[in-house]
Amino acid sequence: MGFSESAVIKLLAEIFASSDERLILGIGDDAAVVRGFEHQILTTDIAVEGVHFKRAWSSPYEIGARIAKANIADILSMNGHCDYLLVAASLTGEESLEWIGDLARGIAETAKEAGAIVVGGDLSKSPTLQIAISAIGHSSNPITRSGARVGDSIYLSSLSGWSAAGLYILQNNLTEQIERSVEYPLAARALSEYRNPTLDSAINFSKAHAMADISDSLLIQGSQIAQSSKVGIEIDIELIAASPEFHELNLLAQELSVDIWHWILGGGEDHVLLATGENLPGICIGQVVSEPGISFRDPHQKMKVAPVSWSHFS
Amino acid sequence: MGFSESAVIKLLAEIFASSDERLILGIGDDAAVVRGFEHQILTTDIAVEGVHFKRAWSSPYEIGARIAKANIADILSMNGHCDYLLVAASLTGEESLEWIGDLARGIAETAKEAGAIVVGGDLSKSPTLQIAISAIGHSSNPITRSGARVGDSIYLSSLSGWSAAGLYILQNNLTEQIERSVEYPLAARALSEYRNPTLDSAINFSKAHAMADISDSLLIQGSQIAQSSKVGIEIDIELIAASPEFHELNLLAQELSVDIWHWILGGGEDHVLLATGENLPGICIGQVVSEPGISFRDPHQKMKVAPVSWSHFS
Repeated sequence: MGFSESAVIKLLAEIFASSDERLILGIGDDAAVVRGFEHQILTTDIAVEGVHFKRAWSSPYEIGARIAKANIADILSMNGHCDYLLVAASLTGEESLEWIGDLARGIAETAKEAGAIVVGGDLSKSPTLQIAISAIGHSSNPITRSGARVGDSIYLSSLSGWSAAGLYILQNNLTEQIERSVEYPLAARALSEYRNPTLDSAINFSKAHAMADISDSLLIQGSQIAQSSKVGIEIDIELIAASPEFHELNLLAQELSVDIWHWILGGGEDHVLLATGENLPGICIGQVVSEPGISFRDPHQKMKVAPVSWSHFS
Repeated sequence: MGFSESAVIKLLAEIFASSDERLILGIGDDAAVVRGFEHQILTTDIAVEGVHFKRAWSSPYEIGARIAKANIADILSMNGHCDYLLVAASLTGEESLEWIGDLARGIAETAKEAGAIVVGGDLSKSPTLQIAISAIGHSSNPITRSGARVGDSIYLSSLSGWSAAGLYILQNNLTEQIERSVEYPLAARALSEYRNPTLDSAINFSKAHAMADISDSLLIQGSQIAQSSKVGIEIDIELIAASPEFHELNLLAQELSVDIWHWILGGGEDHVLLATGENLPGICIGQVVSEPGISFRDPHQKMKVAPVSWSHFS
C-alpha cells in the first residue's frame, strides 16, 4: 500500500460526510449517534471475494453498490425505509486508494439514493477481501414473511432473472460473444442487473400481507413465505410468461440457449420484491393456496423441463 | 463440513433465541424488528483470524466474547447501553458444528451480560475466518471524545495493560514457562483479560466530559481525546504507579523482564474506559491541560525509557 491508514480514513470521512438531520454524531468517535425510530429494522449482509463477487467481473463501485443494495433490499422487504449503514471492510492491502474510494462511493451513492447515510465503519487487513454491511431502518408497519393468506394473489415488483442472466454470461465467459450479438442491449441490461441491481423502491407494497426480497431465488423465498405463513404458493407460469419483460429476457435466453425458467425461478440477487395480498401493483404471478409448499400452474407446458434441483422446494 | 447450513441456522436460532420485550421480530425473516430509542448509538468492529485472534490462543467461546465486547465497549464509551447485536460471520468450512456453537455462545452470553440481544446475522463461506459485529445501543446523554476541558482530571475505569500482558505471553510462547512461576495467578489473569476482557460496565462515568474506550492504547485514545477536544492530556506516571493494581501487574512485568509502561500506555484491547471530568470514580491518572498533545509528569522518573514509537503522540 502506498498510503497510510490515516489517508484512507480521511478519504472515507470525506466520502461519507453528511449533514443529514438524523445524524447527531458521525464518523470519528467510538460510535455514531443518530436519531432513532419506534420500530427499528436491523439486518446485516456479507460479501466475500470469490464467493459473492469477483474483481474481474465488477468494478469496486459496483461491488460496494451491490452489497449496500443487498442490505437495503432487506429493509425494503420489511416495508421499511433504510436510514443508516455501518460498513466493516476487510482489505487485502493490495487495493489502491483510488480503488478503496470507488468502493466507498458505490456504497455512499447507493445509500444516498435510498435516503440512507453511512454513519460508521471499521477497517481491517485480511487475506480475503470482504465487506460486511449492517443496515438500520424503520417502519411504522413492518411486513414479514408470515402474513400470507389463502386466496391472496402473489406479486413480483418486477421480473426476476435478469441478475441470474448476467451472472450466467460472466460465469460462462460469454461477454465477448454477446457483444457481437443483436441481443447485446439485453445482455448489457442483464450484466448491469448483476453488477448493480435496480431496487424496486418505488413500488407500493405497503398493503401486502407478506413480503420478502428475492436474494436467493423466487423458489427459495416463495418457499420461505409458504412455510412461515403455513400456506402454499401456486406459481402461474402462464402469468409470468405474459408479463411485460418476459419477452425480452426470453430473447436473451434463446440467444444463449438457456432455459429461462432457471433464471426466473432459480436465480437470485436481483432483489426483486415478492409479496402476497390483494390488488397490489407489480406483476401478478399466482396465488396463495392451502396445500403447503410450492406448486405450478402451467396448462400449456411453457416450462418444459422441471429442473432436478427444484424438487426439494415443492 | 459434516452438517448442513440449515443445521447451523437451527443451532444459532436456538442459541440466540430471546423473549426480550424490546424484540418485536427476531431471527428468521429478511430483517429483525426491534424497539427503537430516541438517541441510537451505532458501531461496528471486525475480527479477522491471524490479525485479531488465533485459534491456537483463544477458544471459539473467547473469540466470540472478545469481538462482542469490542463492540459493546464502544457503546459503553459513549455512555450508552447496548441493546442489539448483528453478527456477520465468515466461516472457512473447517469448523465443526460444536465450534460454531461455542463461538455463538460466547457472543450470546456476552450480549446477555451487557443486557443486549443478538437479533440477526449473516453467514458466509470464506477462505479467512472472520466475524464482523455491529452493535446498536442508546443513550439519553451520549459522551463523545470532544468534551474534555482544561482542568479536568483524567480517569481510567481500571488499570490498562492486562490484555497487552496476556498477548505478550502468547506472542512469546511463554505460557509453559509462566505456569511454573510463582506469578502464575497474575499471568492467568493477564491471559484471561486478553482472551475475554472484563468490561467496566459498572463504573459510573455518566458525568464525564469526554470518554473513549482503550481499544488501541491509552496513548492513542488519549491523543484522540486531546485532538478532538483541542486540549492536551498530561499523564501522571506517579498516580498510575500508586494505583491499586499497579503492583500486581508490575510483578508480572518484572517476572517477564518487560517494561510495564509498554503494557499500560501502549497496550490495547482490554477496553478500559478513559474519561475526563471532575470527581469521577476510577483511577485518576492526570489532568487536561491547554498545551496540545500528550505529556507526562514523572518527577521520580519511574518511567525509565521513553519508547521510540511514542514520539508521534506527543
